[in-house]
Amino acid sequence: MNKNQTPWVSLVGAGPGDIELISVKGLNRLKKANVVLYDALVNEELLTFAPTAKKIFVGKRLGFKAYEQDQINQLLVNSANEFGYVVRLKGGDPFVFGRGMEEVGFVQLHGIPVEVIPGISSSISVPALANIPVTHRGLSNSFLVISATLADGSLNPELKEVVSLNATIIILMGLSQIEKIMEVFLENFKPELPAAIVCNGSLPDQEVLTGTVATISGLYREARISGPGVIVIGEVVAFANEFCGVLTESGCIS
Amino acid sequence: MNKNQTPWVSLVGAGPGDIELISVKGLNRLKKANVVLYDALVNEELLTFAPTAKKIFVGKRLGFKAYEQDQINQLLVNSANEFGYVVRLKGGDPFVFGRGMEEVGFVQLHGIPVEVIPGISSSISVPALANIPVTHRGLSNSFLVISATLADGSLNPELKEVVSLNATIIILMGLSQIEKIMEVFLENFKPELPAAIVCNGSLPDQEVLTGTVATISGLYREARISGPGVIVIGEVVAFANEFCGVLTESGCIS
Repeated sequence: MNKNQTPWVSLVGAGPGDIELISVKGLNRLKKANVVLYDALVNEELLTFAPTAKKIFVGKRLGFKAYEQDQINQLLVNSANEFGYVVRLKGGDPFVFGRGMEEVGFVQLHGIPVEVIPGISSSISVPALANIPVTHRGLSNSFLVISATLADGSLNPELKEVVSLNATIIILMGLSQIEKIMEVFLENFKPELPAAIVCNGSLPDQEVLTGTVATISGLYREARISGPGVIVIGEVVAFANEFCGVLTESGCIS
Repeated sequence: MNKNQTPWVSLVGAGPGDIELISVKGLNRLKKANVVLYDALVNEELLTFAPTAKKIFVGKRLGFKAYEQDQINQLLVNSANEFGYVVRLKGGDPFVFGRGMEEVGFVQLHGIPVEVIPGISSSISVPALANIPVTHRGLSNSFLVISATLADGSLNPELKEVVSLNATIIILMGLSQIEKIMEVFLENFKPELPAAIVCNGSLPDQEVLTGTVATISGLYREARISGPGVIVIGEVVAFANEFCGVLTESGCIS
């Protein structure tokens, strides 16, 4: 909590879910907040670090949006003007499909200072925590991160352009239409390419499925797992089979 | 420092440079280390959090390598066996062009537990700190991160394949051959596409250059700036012109 009432705003990336994967700077900002606006993908345990701050949930739950984006933008400005320091806590990194720049621009337009504190993006860290490196010398010298779903709910047509790359492909917001996504890869004759799905990455209920472009959507439907997930396609997925679940000082619990 | 001598190893991502951009978990691991092996891209101020640990620099300076990769791998294993808990501190994220999985695999092969603590990757955060969001609704629904230079020092031939994408392109290890990289884009008739270079991202001497695919390499040579840098190409670079340098509670110092 900050006694100074000067309005200013920090967009803070909360990381993939594990509360310890927020940055030191992000946590320090959170502790100073007078108001916290947070999303559905943010681990709510983090809010305990701002015990006296006003907390506003602005995410989407069960398909229901608490606020539209322009309402969130306005809420940021109003909260800063009324209460001073506002932390906008966002899952992962604020600039990876987080609409962060829309918020930054709106706040700036209203003459309120705003900064971005980067977060650990799920796009890289969630594969990593399933033992999948997005790059590996000799195997993958690039990686591409893509949102499967556009603003209107349709499949991102760019998926067709990326299937021919050698890059590791990381697909976010894709689980609801995983069959359609894998069809795009199958049309490009890549049935044997390793593919993985990691749900609830970094959290105690993290689940990892590995297969190929041909098999992964069937495995996903069979497994009946839920929660937000990351799809990874590429040779590097092969490392996931040597998966170590939780590491303690006494060894690896897989 | 950890009195328990049981060998184990954590690969910890130190983030882009600002010491506060390490994760809370990464910092906690560092404080417990008996031995720290660190790279040239790691901010050495972080080492003050492990005052009694044995510290070994294993990076490259002025083109001179302190250790080859297989020596680093062996050093990790030997250090863990001799001293117990080893933190391998790597710039950015361990799995983004960090050869992290080579180290994980070697340590695992020797029966020593090993884990990865993700870091804030420079590929996303360095553009962000120059006010460039790697994604933006309606402008960029994907981004690609690529190493410009392969193991043998040659230009990555995949660059030719990515120039036709709509994705924001983030190029690492590219400044030494920036003219060649921009030629690849120019051959694809993209001279007007916005391009930026961010050097020493997140540090007090951060420098940002913005131009286009046609102008950026000339601007870089003229500016005579040095230090590690990230190249960003795409429409989202236009946001960098509204750059806010350092945000304090009293406002934006640009």
